[in-house]
Amino acid sequence: MKARARNLVLTVAYDGTNYHGFQRQTPPVVAVQNVLERALAKVCGEQVELAAAGRTDAGVHAYGQVVNFFTDGRIPVERLPRAVNGLLPPDIVVTKAWEAQRDFSARHAATGKAYAYRLEECTIPNPFTRNYAWQIFRPLDHAAMRAALSMLVGTHDYSSFRAAGGAPMSPVRTLDEIRLDEEGAGRFSCYLHGNGFLYHMVRNIMSTVVNVGLGRISVERFAAIFAACDRRLASPTAPACGLYLLRVDYGNEDDGRM
Amino acid sequence: MKARARNLVLTVAYDGTNYHGFQRQTPPVVAVQNVLERALAKVCGEQVELAAAGRTDAGVHAYGQVVNFFTDGRIPVERLPRAVNGLLPPDIVVTKAWEAQRDFSARHAATGKAYAYRLEECTIPNPFTRNYAWQIFRPLDHAAMRAALSMLVGTHDYSSFRAAGGAPMSPVRTLDEIRLDEEGAGRFSCYLHGNGFLYHMVRNIMSTVVNVGLGRISVERFAAIFAACDRRLASPTAPACGLYLLRVDYGNEDDGRM
Repeated sequence: MKARARNLVLTVAYDGTNYHGFQRQTPPVVAVQNVLERALAKVCGEQVELAAAGRTDAGVHAYGQVVNFFTDGRIPVERLPRAVNGLLPPDIVVTKAWEAQRDFSARHAATGKAYAYRLEECTIPNPFTRNYAWQIFRPLDHAAMRAALSMLVGTHDYSSFRAAGGAPMSPVRTLDEIRLDEEGAGRFSCYLHGNGFLYHMVRNIMSTVVNVGLGRISVERFAAIFAACDRRLASPTAPACGLYLLRVDYGNEDDGRM
Repeated sequence: MKARARNLVLTVAYDGTNYHGFQRQTPPVVAVQNVLERALAKVCGEQVELAAAGRTDAGVHAYGQVVNFFTDGRIPVERLPRAVNGLLPPDIVVTKAWEAQRDFSARHAATGKAYAYRLEECTIPNPFTRNYAWQIFRPLDHAAMRAALSMLVGTHDYSSFRAAGGAPMSPVRTLDEIRLDEEGAGRFSCYLHGNGFLYHMVRNIMSTVVNVGLGRISVERFAAIFAACDRRLASPTAPACGLYLLRVDYGNEDDGRM
């Protein structure tokens, strides 16, 4: 079989609320990948298969997911976003497209990722953010949360925050920036940037940090949980709806662009 | 039939995306009122019938809708919000409850209302605000929009912005405050406060003002459209998803509270 001619890369934003994650599922279960591949097939005139930089879970959102696929379709790449968006439901949007060198892989070339996790301190439930933030109904101690988060910066073994039963890869990652930003009206966004993240790592960090904020776990205890490299000591995974894949980095701005 | 003993008032917030407006519909069409009455019936031990201050349309949202209903149910009113919220889907939330004098009507005692209409200037569609703002894909002239909006403050005949075929009530209303607030990242919120609003009035104002912002209607032409008292001259109704019922006022803070 002749290799397909072009390697196309897309950045994609989606509201993950109505999807069973990014990765393709067997119908009637619908993932973002199913919907995106169907729209791309119409535009390219042939079935295509996406590879994604990050496999977001059900309910997780993305501002800057990156995918690539091979095609013989001849549509000019600058016309691709508008053409595909015309076929996509409004909760999935292709924001950029470019043609890459044949050996570029959105997944394997990624050198870093940025996530945000949104929290909202409420006295009563907020119907408008129910799918977009983790609503917390007691006041949080932000100084304690920042103290806990600051311990995570650097190169560490993050086993305590790794999903139980994950793939047997190294649990060592480097996080170079973590911030807890106040956005007003009780809303907070935790920004995390690193060279890679273990499965469920951000959500397990956030659940444990929120328990620090609630005073259920002291900052000292948090340090001990982190150092123990034992998933059983950290808190249960935080809700998916608070998590956003913001951006995927490619080394030296090398996103494969030709 | 003996009159029911208590007149209870609720403030309600809802995400209108999944409902066919506030006012009760025949199943399978579902309105906010259907869902709220079903939950209240369980809590009160009898069927109840709500009267609402504002009948929001399909897709319109509310932060502070006000409703009242009569019941013999004995639940302490301070426990009502939590009890009802436990039975409601997460896109409808009772935010306050109080017991009112028998003659208080959430609808007829209203002396004013505040609405917001949200706009977002985008270069590409934003999947996260698709149900929560009117996305505009060209830059808007905010000074021209503010000039047009400022003409609407005062006591006027708003026939040009009234839904065609509405009920034959007076088209004169008083708007005492209109602001176009910048919220960052291309988002704008137009705040309108007045003693009452005609059907579709905010959405018809906003569609015409956006056309001013796009340069399709001059500020002078807007003045002429307003003065003509002719609905056919203004623009087609703006999308429901941008509209929020923020608050209902009761004269002298008289919300019927006993």
